[in-house]
Amino acid sequence: MKRQESLLSKTPDHISTPPLPQELLDLRKQIDRLDSQLLEVLAQRNHVVSRVAGVKKKHQIPIRDRERETSILQDRKSTCQTLGLSDSVVENVYRVLLTASRERQADLGTEVPDNLSQRTVAVIGGHGGMGKLFANLFESVGQEVLLADLDTTLTPTEAASRADAVLISVPMRATVEVIRKIGPSCRKDGLLFDVTSTKVEPVEEMIQNSCCDVIGTHPMFGPSVNTLQEQRVVLVHGRLRENSPWPNWLSRCLKARGMLILESDAEEHDRSMGIVQVLTHLSTQVLGLAMARLGVPITQTMRFASPVYLMGLIMTARHFCQSSELYGAIHMSNPNQPEVARAFSQSLTDWLESVKNKDQEEFDRLFTEAHNFFGDFSDQALTQSTHLIDRLVERG
Amino acid sequence: MKRQESLLSKTPDHISTPPLPQELLDLRKQIDRLDSQLLEVLAQRNHVVSRVAGVKKKHQIPIRDRERETSILQDRKSTCQTLGLSDSVVENVYRVLLTASRERQADLGTEVPDNLSQRTVAVIGGHGGMGKLFANLFESVGQEVLLADLDTTLTPTEAASRADAVLISVPMRATVEVIRKIGPSCRKDGLLFDVTSTKVEPVEEMIQNSCCDVIGTHPMFGPSVNTLQEQRVVLVHGRLRENSPWPNWLSRCLKARGMLILESDAEEHDRSMGIVQVLTHLSTQVLGLAMARLGVPITQTMRFASPVYLMGLIMTARHFCQSSELYGAIHMSNPNQPEVARAFSQSLTDWLESVKNKDQEEFDRLFTEAHNFFGDFSDQALTQSTHLIDRLVERG
Repeated sequence: MKRQESLLSKTPDHISTPPLPQELLDLRKQIDRLDSQLLEVLAQRNHVVSRVAGVKKKHQIPIRDRERETSILQDRKSTCQTLGLSDSVVENVYRVLLTASRERQADLGTEVPDNLSQRTVAVIGGHGGMGKLFANLFESVGQEVLLADLDTTLTPTEAASRADAVLISVPMRATVEVIRKIGPSCRKDGLLFDVTSTKVEPVEEMIQNSCCDVIGTHPMFGPSVNTLQEQRVVLVHGRLRENSPWPNWLSRCLKARGMLILESDAEEHDRSMGIVQVLTHLSTQVLGLAMARLGVPITQTMRFASPVYLMGLIMTARHFCQSSELYGAIHMSNPNQPEVARAFSQSLTDWLESVKNKDQEEFDRLFTEAHNFFGDFSDQALTQSTHLIDRLVERG
Repeated sequence: MKRQESLLSKTPDHISTPPLPQELLDLRKQIDRLDSQLLEVLAQRNHVVSRVAGVKKKHQIPIRDRERETSILQDRKSTCQTLGLSDSVVENVYRVLLTASRERQADLGTEVPDNLSQRTVAVIGGHGGMGKLFANLFESVGQEVLLADLDTTLTPTEAASRADAVLISVPMRATVEVIRKIGPSCRKDGLLFDVTSTKVEPVEEMIQNSCCDVIGTHPMFGPSVNTLQEQRVVLVHGRLRENSPWPNWLSRCLKARGMLILESDAEEHDRSMGIVQVLTHLSTQVLGLAMARLGVPITQTMRFASPVYLMGLIMTARHFCQSSELYGAIHMSNPNQPEVARAFSQSLTDWLESVKNKDQEEFDRLFTEAHNFFGDFSDQALTQSTHLIDRLVERG
């Protein structure tokens, strides 16, 4: 692995330093001893968390208890005041510990129900990023998984005919073709589901080309996430038999790993993705391409980086590490893309016009138009963004 | 203060829950006891850090010691493996503790040199956000501060004539006017400096309208930051007498609070700000206005939020909480704005053309053009952005 370098700050020159005074070295030894105690306490805490996981599993109690988390945060913060510690330090430490505690409980299968029926799941495209992620997920909750991909001896059609549930996890442009090919092989009492970023067309195609139950699925995250906890998955009920067991089975599998389930209809989903994906991707893509064309080297702008600029820069660079094919398909297949493109273009024209005319009044009017849209959300956004900026500066 | 709400996730319904089993309550009591120990150790650690501050001050040792930080991180991570704790949890906890330790040392004046000469600093615009921030900063390092603003009995001109160093911290559009008014009152052996976001014009004006030393200053952060540590300040040497004491005095004042000093010339600064400020602000402004005009309520898109979308949303909403006047002035006064606007517009046209023509090949070409620009930076960006996403999910 590459040595991880600091982004925000680097000592400009190496200056040879005199040896440190003994009294400083002694204090550092005291800190080392205190840190040993601290890690020992954390390890004991971790051990108790494992036992909590066992009790919760036995009594079918969910991993996350927001009331308990809030009361821990409040209590630890009030204790820290009497101890002369800063509020925000204790809060930040406990945010890390609470998340780690939930992650540990999820790893121990706390929310995997004992009575979850075991099904055979065929993952078509099982060698791709999302395919692997879902294959691991279903295995971790006790399901049997069949992988089929371009390079497996098991063909997609065979896998589909042998499975109870069939997941389509292939590149977006291939989705319809694969659905048409394997849909007819799905069992009548089975489930056909997908992970495509749009929902109207794939759900329609799955219904047309199979006789089984159909659920459109859109995981709102990519394969590189560190945790599945709190990650959202949109479920669109396509076609379901009366008393179909599938919605419940799928929800329980996903919730067992801490994911959040959101039900929606296909149209509402695609409309929202016009903003969540099409608009925000377009904005990032235009920014990245303009940076490339202006050609000021990153090393130069980094010298002058504010934390907000650095954050924009790393999120933009991250975008261009992902799949161009996926991003192209998201634009080209979303029915709301033309409307989004028009709004973005007109907004650009209006801003540039006000700047060109040095018309501060018009600039203020546009600024207020956007400010008002965010409304009450702004307060939360300020708190959360300041927190993120602090975490970024912390890594400097 | 408003109750802070969770952004990413909210329990959809309040379900009345059965009482918790006694064995869970007992385990929670164990966790509470361990947490008391943990906070006690943190308080002791904090106390030792205060003593470290005293020793460092006595021996003039800088607060930050990157070697020591790296060795602490490595050592604690290797210990945690034998204790069955996860690497990343321990790293995240220690990032918080190391930053807190530096902050505490800075609060205790560790890097405030005993031999820093005491000067009188007039802060013109001392009631504004940045004015207050710099007034506090100079006071905290033992300087005498005079505040002048529109509503003070002390006029800016009087303040300037009574001070050794005069800081212009007024709205951007008023900067030139204020410089012309108070410049002639500055003492010949004094310093005139500013905090404007461009540097060519204000530095030129300060030189033209005074006889004293001139340093252009651009703090790369706003008044709402939680810490000054690792924040960057650009210094542009405008006019300096031979053996001028001012560059050294100013650097030492700023470094005493942990800030990073960057020297630049005015032209290089303004060129870089074409990217760091003009381009990234434009991108955020267009995105925010387009969101407002498309009018899909935030509550609706938040239901479907991925962490990346949420991050973009909070950073955009944050932007529109800042000063429209400042942002307008940054665009209208930067000499590189027209070039930036052209690059952004052309990039938008090219992306939209490829999408409209459903030309995936052309889309890939544009994508690669941007991807290649980020080059080696992408690896760091992926690591850092994943870290930020984790921290955001943690608050869910």
